[in-house]
Amino acid sequence: MELSQRILGMQASPIRRLVPYAEEAKRKGRSIYYLNIGQPDIKTPSGFFEAVRAYSRDVLAYGPSDGDPALIDAIIRYYRGYGMEFGRENVLITYGASEAISHTLMAVCDPGDEVLVPEPFYANYKTFVQSVNAVVVPVTTKAEQGFHLPGREEIERKITPRTRAIILCHPGNPTGTVFTRAEMEMVAGLARTHGFFILADEVYREFVYDGLEYVSFGNLEGVDEHVVIMDAVSKRYSACGARVGCLVSRNTELVAQVLKLCQARTCVGAMDMAGAAALYDTPVSYLKEVNDEYTTRRNTVYRALKRIPGVVCEEPKGAFYVVAKLPVDDAEKFIIWMLTSFDVGGETVMMSPAEGFYATPGLGRDEVRIAYVLKNEELAKAMDILKAGLEAYPGRIAPVAAG
Amino acid sequence: MELSQRILGMQASPIRRLVPYAEEAKRKGRSIYYLNIGQPDIKTPSGFFEAVRAYSRDVLAYGPSDGDPALIDAIIRYYRGYGMEFGRENVLITYGASEAISHTLMAVCDPGDEVLVPEPFYANYKTFVQSVNAVVVPVTTKAEQGFHLPGREEIERKITPRTRAIILCHPGNPTGTVFTRAEMEMVAGLARTHGFFILADEVYREFVYDGLEYVSFGNLEGVDEHVVIMDAVSKRYSACGARVGCLVSRNTELVAQVLKLCQARTCVGAMDMAGAAALYDTPVSYLKEVNDEYTTRRNTVYRALKRIPGVVCEEPKGAFYVVAKLPVDDAEKFIIWMLTSFDVGGETVMMSPAEGFYATPGLGRDEVRIAYVLKNEELAKAMDILKAGLEAYPGRIAPVAAG
Repeated sequence: MELSQRILGMQASPIRRLVPYAEEAKRKGRSIYYLNIGQPDIKTPSGFFEAVRAYSRDVLAYGPSDGDPALIDAIIRYYRGYGMEFGRENVLITYGASEAISHTLMAVCDPGDEVLVPEPFYANYKTFVQSVNAVVVPVTTKAEQGFHLPGREEIERKITPRTRAIILCHPGNPTGTVFTRAEMEMVAGLARTHGFFILADEVYREFVYDGLEYVSFGNLEGVDEHVVIMDAVSKRYSACGARVGCLVSRNTELVAQVLKLCQARTCVGAMDMAGAAALYDTPVSYLKEVNDEYTTRRNTVYRALKRIPGVVCEEPKGAFYVVAKLPVDDAEKFIIWMLTSFDVGGETVMMSPAEGFYATPGLGRDEVRIAYVLKNEELAKAMDILKAGLEAYPGRIAPVAAG
Repeated sequence: MELSQRILGMQASPIRRLVPYAEEAKRKGRSIYYLNIGQPDIKTPSGFFEAVRAYSRDVLAYGPSDGDPALIDAIIRYYRGYGMEFGRENVLITYGASEAISHTLMAVCDPGDEVLVPEPFYANYKTFVQSVNAVVVPVTTKAEQGFHLPGREEIERKITPRTRAIILCHPGNPTGTVFTRAEMEMVAGLARTHGFFILADEVYREFVYDGLEYVSFGNLEGVDEHVVIMDAVSKRYSACGARVGCLVSRNTELVAQVLKLCQARTCVGAMDMAGAAALYDTPVSYLKEVNDEYTTRRNTVYRALKRIPGVVCEEPKGAFYVVAKLPVDDAEKFIIWMLTSFDVGGETVMMSPAEGFYATPGLGRDEVRIAYVLKNEELAKAMDILKAGLEAYPGRIAPVAAG
């Protein structure tokens, strides 16, 4: 039986497809530091579980398609804290940020339309774009430049009459990059001039380090009709298993149209919505402590990477990832080798190959994404193992000798 | 800002779009019998809530993309009880049956492909088919024939080289129709001959009345590569607010391809999966009691409808809906009139207009869907009000006088 060209053209998750090698390593008795997936080890605030336990109705009924009003109101209050005013007509509750992205793409792209995406990007963006038969047009960013956007002219060369949107992850997964206000204004200007949507995936909003000012695309002026914010509780409150996100936009026509898709899938889980509403009451001190913890982790990983000869990366300023160029022929082969053929005292490290985060063939082949989601002392050990692995790896490329 | 042709072509939910009239009626002090939506009033088994309360991990982490193994195993055992053998490679956990349907369509249809759907159908099927830029090709069924399928030749006339699938709801929403084995074998034969998929939405499997034998499309021989079952806990265990369904198929290539889509949206809610696994341990007596209750309700509604002059319907054998032809010019107008201009002692009735369940323009205009999801005595009252409303309605069409 023939399947669709659409689905055959999609790739399996580059984050998850090396899992069988890890399982093999575990069977051989190795223990693994998992730096491959953005699953934080931070405790979920107890408010979630308390709200879920307090659920007292006899019938677990459908919720409203646009979302539980108590949750929507909590989200409106949350955004007010960031200087953004929204009403209920601006918010739809979704299954994580993932559904906010896929629904928005469905509402703005017809088959053959184009979506700009700075690469390296969160790999699932490509799947979501392919789902609506649109095309990812990559805008390449570079490790040496901290993965900041190229200049306006370079982006403009990628724009055609079929450009419908740009997807930006801010702070960036997998790059850890926090855009400057100037970069954001440049994107806003392009969106106005060429009439496309800005899909802003801001699930890492609280994960910005070094006291850097965080600006949301929702804070920009003059792009109310263009900006669609995609958000979720997953990373903010370490609640990845609660599938609750939202789509937030001042373009009420877009919101009204996407509501049709929300109606078709009836509603988001009632338990998860009750828990998520409580999460937004978590004291701000929680987010501050988490931020401090990740700053420490970022420092550990970044400093260790900079001490390894031949590794190229800039200090990530947000999220909890870093993409590093390694002195190897092929990062995926290196990761597999680490899992199957290398250990230090029975321990090894798993990372994500970065090639799957690029749309341009060949790019990112020598890069990995490291998620610093383990405790600091574990990260320190993992970095020592990575260093030792790079020294022992047969496919190592000699770094340029220092002068 | 321009939106996609895809989304502009979708209709708002015909089940939900009359809600504002109901709200207006409530504001005027009327109380309403809601027969418009398939939200059962039956208690959710306590096992769901107990499992959710017992969740004891500190971190609400991502679950596996294909689903919680404990839940998958529970589903495999459940199907074994219906004489169907499946392994873990045959099952994917989804956000309700809705996602199982939309993911399957994404995997089997490219833009311009065609999907056969007997009409009247669950209206959201159309939205899901439009989401993948495929086309609904309706196969009309009729109230006078209890909405059973037309003959093989009539269906065959609708098949083209672009026919990729047929979607069947069995037992049927909105029709209450349970297919005969002969009808099902006819569909299986067509699927084999013309090489298309059978998407079997069987969420109402336990809602079959009068001791009728229930056959699943998964019980048929010779169509292992063709049949994809879509299922959910929503109706079975009155847990609509738990968004847990599944896709079940012996076509392992299809399952493997759909897993890419599951990976892209990460996972189904961890709380809901834990609760759903417990639901499958609900004693069979629960389902038997629920079935008895719905049999009583069906009898009440069907017998009342048959006593109203000019109403046409056959006895529904499954699910908890009936589509009835009313002696009115336009059923939607009649429903709005009932909400805005009619009551008996301050009470009125809300139903769904059936036109939105048809793809052929003009069909179903004089039909309504009634969901018998209220207590029996409430249904009896609601039917009395419907009868009185039809007698008083200015747009009434005189029934053909009896001989």
